[in-house]
Amino acid sequence: METTATDTLLDTSAQDYERILDAAEAAAAPLARTDLHERAHLLRSVADALDATASELVPLAAADSSLPEPRLRGEVTRTTTQLRMFAEVVEEGSWLEAIIDTADPDAHPAPRPDLRRMLVPTGPVAVFGASNFPFAFGLGGGDTASALAAGCPVVAKAHPAQPRLTAAYARAIDEGLRACGAPDGTFGVVQGAEIGRQLVQDRRITAVGFTGSTSGGRALADLAAGRPDPIPFYGELGSTNPVFVTPAAAEDRSGKIAGEFLESLLLGAGQFCTKPGLLFVPEQSSIEWLVRTAVADDSFRLLHAGIRQSFLEVSQQILDHPEVRPVAVPEQSGLDELSVRPVIGVTDARALRRNPQDLLEECFGPFGLIVTYTSIDELYAAMAVLPGTLTATVHGTDDDPDAAGLLGALARRAGRVIWNGWPTGVAVGWAQHHGGPYPATNSVHTSVGATAIRRFLRPVAYQSVPEANLPSALVDANPWGIPRRVNGRLS
Amino acid sequence: METTATDTLLDTSAQDYERILDAAEAAAAPLARTDLHERAHLLRSVADALDATASELVPLAAADSSLPEPRLRGEVTRTTTQLRMFAEVVEEGSWLEAIIDTADPDAHPAPRPDLRRMLVPTGPVAVFGASNFPFAFGLGGGDTASALAAGCPVVAKAHPAQPRLTAAYARAIDEGLRACGAPDGTFGVVQGAEIGRQLVQDRRITAVGFTGSTSGGRALADLAAGRPDPIPFYGELGSTNPVFVTPAAAEDRSGKIAGEFLESLLLGAGQFCTKPGLLFVPEQSSIEWLVRTAVADDSFRLLHAGIRQSFLEVSQQILDHPEVRPVAVPEQSGLDELSVRPVIGVTDARALRRNPQDLLEECFGPFGLIVTYTSIDELYAAMAVLPGTLTATVHGTDDDPDAAGLLGALARRAGRVIWNGWPTGVAVGWAQHHGGPYPATNSVHTSVGATAIRRFLRPVAYQSVPEANLPSALVDANPWGIPRRVNGRLS
Repeated sequence: METTATDTLLDTSAQDYERILDAAEAAAAPLARTDLHERAHLLRSVADALDATASELVPLAAADSSLPEPRLRGEVTRTTTQLRMFAEVVEEGSWLEAIIDTADPDAHPAPRPDLRRMLVPTGPVAVFGASNFPFAFGLGGGDTASALAAGCPVVAKAHPAQPRLTAAYARAIDEGLRACGAPDGTFGVVQGAEIGRQLVQDRRITAVGFTGSTSGGRALADLAAGRPDPIPFYGELGSTNPVFVTPAAAEDRSGKIAGEFLESLLLGAGQFCTKPGLLFVPEQSSIEWLVRTAVADDSFRLLHAGIRQSFLEVSQQILDHPEVRPVAVPEQSGLDELSVRPVIGVTDARALRRNPQDLLEECFGPFGLIVTYTSIDELYAAMAVLPGTLTATVHGTDDDPDAAGLLGALARRAGRVIWNGWPTGVAVGWAQHHGGPYPATNSVHTSVGATAIRRFLRPVAYQSVPEANLPSALVDANPWGIPRRVNGRLS
Repeated sequence: METTATDTLLDTSAQDYERILDAAEAAAAPLARTDLHERAHLLRSVADALDATASELVPLAAADSSLPEPRLRGEVTRTTTQLRMFAEVVEEGSWLEAIIDTADPDAHPAPRPDLRRMLVPTGPVAVFGASNFPFAFGLGGGDTASALAAGCPVVAKAHPAQPRLTAAYARAIDEGLRACGAPDGTFGVVQGAEIGRQLVQDRRITAVGFTGSTSGGRALADLAAGRPDPIPFYGELGSTNPVFVTPAAAEDRSGKIAGEFLESLLLGAGQFCTKPGLLFVPEQSSIEWLVRTAVADDSFRLLHAGIRQSFLEVSQQILDHPEVRPVAVPEQSGLDELSVRPVIGVTDARALRRNPQDLLEECFGPFGLIVTYTSIDELYAAMAVLPGTLTATVHGTDDDPDAAGLLGALARRAGRVIWNGWPTGVAVGWAQHHGGPYPATNSVHTSVGATAIRRFLRPVAYQSVPEANLPSALVDANPWGIPRRVNGRLS
């Protein structure tokens, strides 16, 4: 893991670690028992506390990350909006997946007992936040919001690149939890690389949410899978987010596409997991030339020195490949110790197909690769070497002969398929899916959107249990008024 | 893996293996494209083919397994009922989890694009069936039925204890698939222990369903997790299925409980994953005495020689423990090479708590352990050392002071909580859950019941994709008439 240039977080002591994990374990049962309104109130209370301290938190995050304050203020809003959305999701109650099959002594081939199933929280969850979204994918970000919504205590591992923000962010969350009377131990923070590895292997932890690099995430995933009792590891690791421009779209609006590509590529200095890192364009199109012309000599401050170092090395390595030509290779000197200028290369689809390892190496930061193709067949052939990805985008026209085929093929390799848009910008809502075949994630679940709650729940069926001992979600009268399936019918 | 006494299955050749896996990969796209009615028709067609060949299949299964023919005929019915249930589940359409958020340019904190999410099949699935249910957890059992329902081709690994049944069972499934025009490669069978390990690591396989022993399952789970691209491994491994008899219930009906315990324990010669292997009873109750009196000197033929050998060794090992006394320790001599008589031991809750490794070792077959307790506190203390389990049962009375506490605590450790019943008998329906904390399974999903389909599906979101290129499940008109969530509301 990286260290910051300016400050460091101290490792959590063994004594504090035990106290935090024991508290999380002790909080699991009382938190699971909260009803839907208490749970929703808890989420809103945390959101309120974050809103109330935003003006204190944003400058700390800016100092840690070099991200501009307006962007960080927007991110706090995204974070509190997300917490409040999960409050609505919790109250609506579908997430409980309550299913009731009443007894049927005449059932074929065997009589059936009364059977009632619902989802319950798995227990304490470990959350590893990302450095690139200090708030929305940080201590109180999507993984924490969805775990709390599920009724799971959270032990968050602080990111080492957030030495200033961490304590204040944790305190704000804690104040929100105290204000609503949440059980002690509902939320805790630990620090240190070795502590993080210990956390994933801790018998008190029941699931892990992770956002970060493929190498770091995979190491933790292997620890989770290697436990005496393996637990689910929900890792959002690397993603190439390819964009395919059809011949018809290139004909129609190359200038618009080139401009929007650069805008999306450079958002957040290219430090988004949804950065469109690959742009497939017809060989004869002017898009490469338009990008070359449009890319400015602006510099971007990266999150920390480790990312800058890796960006300069990997981008150079790809440009040095004999089948890659430079589009924009600016002078990187004369900048401060965190800043870089964008780098863009170009190759062709046949070369990409021959050298996927070399040309698809993850390069966090303002680096993109344009890939030219001479036929649609070449495009499909190149697609076959692309790893799983969070998103895949097609730019086409209204009556585009290539659109249906491309969209269909990409839905088999990506978690989100985008038409005439750009992958950056991940709306938080009911229908969002932020995941995809490995390494995008290694799970059949999402880390953003309402259905992210499903990751931290497991089913329990109650057989012939009398009403008095059933959870409220499953008693006949349906006192919570939630959607349920009764004898096969939704109601 | 075991070999049979009488016959063996030949390993699949390298050439056949490649042909089968390539065919499965090629079938993935056409199978995914089938509409709900075609998919349901496919499942019913397989069920019809199994019904039509039942009289041919049952004697082969009986010869392989020593299970009585009436039991096996019932199991074929369970298998075809399950396939037809999944046909209904598919047609109902909720499993697609279709969610539509229409565009909202005024949304806060950012405008929203049109976003439509649904579940799609993961791709080819490997299925490892169990020896104890040759039909219902075999080639065409629950894992296969739910994977086909999800739209995934299946490559099943034949169980080495089914040398006679395998080819005929596979042929029947194949006939069902041909009769409805399913894509070639929808179903294939491979054989051999090393082939099984290869299958789990095959890049064409996207998920694994497994039912079997903890050791065998864990070895395959580790291979799945260690792939360059890890895939979900849904393993139903070991389970202790503890049964707790409260003081009030023991007072009320010890005789009934003792008799039913023996009946459930010895069902299928104790070779059920839901066998009630632990019976907690008040120390002063007569249940131990009643069990001792009631257990007959009957012998049971086990599935194969490997299970018999392991049964004799492990049951003896547990009985040899200084803190275990024998309840029933019959003479095992004078029986044929597959038969044994039931073995039952007794220990106390304090001893169990001190020696969980020794006393909770998995013993497949007609072995049970009675655990006496002197106080409810002792019961909770012993519960803390029990591993995750598929089921946990409480026997209590109407106004039992201990019922609510026990049921609540057990719901945190088990997948199914049973009141005044027995864990054997797993109804196939909407509300069933057959899973639980590791080693019962290592997943947040079930292997039996309607929701088992969720294991072989992953979400895809379509952003701003025009109607003409959307899957039918997501177009405005809802041509399939499936339940959907539109802008947050279920309809």
